[in-house]
Amino acid sequence: MKKAVVLLSGGMDSAVVLAIAREQGFACHALSVSYGQRHTSELEAALRLAASCGVEHKVVSVDLRSIGGSALTADIDVPEAPQDGIPVTYVPARNTIMLSIALGWAEVLGANDIFCGVNAVDYSGYPDCRPEFVEAFERLANLATVSGVEGNRLSIHAPLMRMGKAQIASEGRRLGVDFALTVSCYQADAQGRACGRCDACRLRAEGFRTAGLSDPTRYL
Amino acid sequence: MKKAVVLLSGGMDSAVVLAIAREQGFACHALSVSYGQRHTSELEAALRLAASCGVEHKVVSVDLRSIGGSALTADIDVPEAPQDGIPVTYVPARNTIMLSIALGWAEVLGANDIFCGVNAVDYSGYPDCRPEFVEAFERLANLATVSGVEGNRLSIHAPLMRMGKAQIASEGRRLGVDFALTVSCYQADAQGRACGRCDACRLRAEGFRTAGLSDPTRYL
Repeated sequence: MKKAVVLLSGGMDSAVVLAIAREQGFACHALSVSYGQRHTSELEAALRLAASCGVEHKVVSVDLRSIGGSALTADIDVPEAPQDGIPVTYVPARNTIMLSIALGWAEVLGANDIFCGVNAVDYSGYPDCRPEFVEAFERLANLATVSGVEGNRLSIHAPLMRMGKAQIASEGRRLGVDFALTVSCYQADAQGRACGRCDACRLRAEGFRTAGLSDPTRYL
Repeated sequence: MKKAVVLLSGGMDSAVVLAIAREQGFACHALSVSYGQRHTSELEAALRLAASCGVEHKVVSVDLRSIGGSALTADIDVPEAPQDGIPVTYVPARNTIMLSIALGWAEVLGANDIFCGVNAVDYSGYPDCRPEFVEAFERLANLATVSGVEGNRLSIHAPLMRMGKAQIASEGRRLGVDFALTVSCYQADAQGRACGRCDACRLRAEGFRTAGLSDPTRYL
């Protein structure tokens, strides 16, 4: 079986990505990045998800609180109403940093495939959730590593890129993802209970509603 | 003054890069990455260097020991004789990870320029020290960030790219870099004293010798 590193945040999107990578026959190694995010219960969700699939799971810490600049990593309130432009929950360079760490682990494991849950439909305007970003990272990955230089083509998979939240929910349902294990809320409490008001909560609830599926999210 | 983030490891190369960026008129913000490297005294060297120039200095931690795969981040001995191929001191994806963190900080600061000390002459065969890597990262940076997408052209500067160690030593001398503050050795002790036998020590000593300059390195 070919190995893959799967970025697993603990939210619904990356849970579906993990299921997709497993369906495609990859031996998955799940990676969560503890970057100082406000919602640490998402990391516990990632632990539960990985354990439920029996895949190896690693949590790597990078202290993005020391940089700040986001409602998720600094003392800035999470907005509870839709905003114009790029929301303050955008974490500068987060996906670049997380993919870079995944790249390092992939090279150590001898994996040529990295999966991530970015998507350009419900992406809130984040620049690092667009196809051109993923393509540029893949190009970089093949120049940055011994593996790439030696001709092992590294691929960055973003299977949710063109899906909306409703489609992601349906895809997860088809694959048997236990959404009760996931946490999407930007300000979930220590027990993983969601606020129901932030951008992440709104998008998730709307996705399940549109898909006609029940959402097991527990609210505060 | 335009702001720049300067990756500052504490070794001689990045010390010279900092001096170059300052000579070019940038307001420099020095960034060191504590990645679990064996030679932590290089981080103390970075602190001393930044303090000696009076520039802001930030240390961001990322735990690459949890990934391993290198003599600098795992229990693998640092080689003390020249090796064929990529040496075991190569840290998978390290420069990608460090530049990504620099990118995040640059975006928070509103800086469009990032300086790093990679060079393709004495690069020990590391894939992430080549011009094509730096160009690919620059391209990615402009797609990954709000700043880049809004048309603020981000530049990655690698002013040492074409210089050998002797030229770097001479350039540092010209710019008044205090090399006594720097630590290059992969296995320097807590006081920053060098082994004199590893790849980094050999390259440094040879550079100073070829340049006809005295090297203030303290050896064990």
